[in-house]
Amino acid sequence: MNIQQIFAPIQEELAQVEARLRQAVRVEYLPLADIFEMLIGSGGKRIRPALSILATKFHPTDPEKMYTLAIATELVHAATLIHDDLIDRSSTRRGTPTINSRWSGTATVLAGDFLLARAADIAASLDNFRVMRIFARTLMTICEGEIRQDFARSHWPPNRDEYYKHIESKTASLFIAATEGGAILSGAPENEIAALKAYGRYLGMAFQMVDDILDFTADEKELGKPVGSDLRQGTFTLPVFYYLENDARDKPIAEMLSTQVDQLIEAIRHSSAIAAAKAEAQRTAQAARDALAIFPDTIYRRTLADLTEYVVERTL
Amino acid sequence: MNIQQIFAPIQEELAQVEARLRQAVRVEYLPLADIFEMLIGSGGKRIRPALSILATKFHPTDPEKMYTLAIATELVHAATLIHDDLIDRSSTRRGTPTINSRWSGTATVLAGDFLLARAADIAASLDNFRVMRIFARTLMTICEGEIRQDFARSHWPPNRDEYYKHIESKTASLFIAATEGGAILSGAPENEIAALKAYGRYLGMAFQMVDDILDFTADEKELGKPVGSDLRQGTFTLPVFYYLENDARDKPIAEMLSTQVDQLIEAIRHSSAIAAAKAEAQRTAQAARDALAIFPDTIYRRTLADLTEYVVERTL
Repeated sequence: MNIQQIFAPIQEELAQVEARLRQAVRVEYLPLADIFEMLIGSGGKRIRPALSILATKFHPTDPEKMYTLAIATELVHAATLIHDDLIDRSSTRRGTPTINSRWSGTATVLAGDFLLARAADIAASLDNFRVMRIFARTLMTICEGEIRQDFARSHWPPNRDEYYKHIESKTASLFIAATEGGAILSGAPENEIAALKAYGRYLGMAFQMVDDILDFTADEKELGKPVGSDLRQGTFTLPVFYYLENDARDKPIAEMLSTQVDQLIEAIRHSSAIAAAKAEAQRTAQAARDALAIFPDTIYRRTLADLTEYVVERTL
Repeated sequence: MNIQQIFAPIQEELAQVEARLRQAVRVEYLPLADIFEMLIGSGGKRIRPALSILATKFHPTDPEKMYTLAIATELVHAATLIHDDLIDRSSTRRGTPTINSRWSGTATVLAGDFLLARAADIAASLDNFRVMRIFARTLMTICEGEIRQDFARSHWPPNRDEYYKHIESKTASLFIAATEGGAILSGAPENEIAALKAYGRYLGMAFQMVDDILDFTADEKELGKPVGSDLRQGTFTLPVFYYLENDARDKPIAEMLSTQVDQLIEAIRHSSAIAAAKAEAQRTAQAARDALAIFPDTIYRRTLADLTEYVVERTL
């Protein structure tokens, strides 16, 4: 199933999200308006807005609040992409030139800041302090995680526990904000809020594990960047840890990393580490599925379950 | 009067602010904790927290909320300083090395983001949606203003109206968040909220005008950067506009800017433009003073009035 098929039950809501996203980033000042138009217009899977919407569907929810949450999660996501691309000096994303490749570093930093501010502004209209705090905390978690990674690059040996912490803060935290936030807005009881929070956490972690696997296995052209770019930047991801444990106990990894990184990436790409990492992503996605057990078997629960399969099967 | 003398009536509150600021930026992760300790520890005048506190003093106010607002304004200010220093590639601030001079660009961008997130998190505990929205809007205004300036550098001729817009968004907006926010938290009636908003706006504009004058007239050592650094970066400030209008109607400014910037700065420094700019700052500070007329003559109103004199008389 592709993502459009999975999201068919909330197709109308997602169309609204597109229109409202454009509205949300509308600014008077023209160069900035162009930046945002380009950023929002270039699309994306809209997984976070979809999660926000789906999480509200187990109880009657004010649609305005549902949309507000959906927009706020996507704006935070867009802001982090802007800052990530600047940090990684990426020149394209989704086949479109990145903001940092077309504008100054200044404009790029500030465009990201502006979107964070806009997300906070929009979240303030939720009239729900609990959700707003989750939002602010999520932002802190994302930033702290990124800084942690930036410093970790200069540390050796890399640490697998740090990896799990990192993907939780980098990716799962915003998935959690979407699902936990949606559940709270819908007035769900605490056990359901906890279940949707757990679902968001596992789904986000599985999603990032697969991203990290695809960084090794995907086609360079589809990826839009060189294979193994995380490792090239000194970041160890799940396949690398499996490779170190299963295939390369006695190999001089530190040395290969500095002198033969292409060969090292090729070796990992063709090792059992890829299947082992994928199996772990599958187990994590299964944990997300299990968290849905307390909900009635509705079209929305099935959509959430389908998403857990999609995130591990996707090829990009 | 120096700033300590002016702030004597709220000395205890400001001591609390110092302690709470340290608490607010406490993080587990050590390198980041060091960054924030350095940033918060290196001081500053704490004008924004002081304004937040003073603006609540005309009605009985929950001290917790007063402190929350004070901390949030200073955190936003600290975040903008971090991003400004990175953008301007400044190596010192208040005699201390800047974060960007000691850490990577990545860590610097993210440390600023983290403080913005923390400010949003703290503001969320205000339980006041009106103040939270002012906060989020302020952040957007600051970012949009900075981006506007970044793009304006490549435009000629520079525009005086743009200058006023810029200092309003860059500096006055956060002064307004402090004074308007404080008034709202204190439960002041709308006419007092409007008066304190106007006060914050004029004070902030006067403050920035004087900053821009000091960029020409202050001692390089005290300034910690070369005289005329705004103009060197292509940014036109109030003294430049007066110079263009009164002293340099027929001079080839565009050409001097690219070939003889040192002589141009010296010429402005010794022209009547400095006194003219200072007179405008004084008129703006007077407007701030006038806005206080509706308040009873208390020690706090006198402190706010003293501040309007301080901002134009200060030498750094």
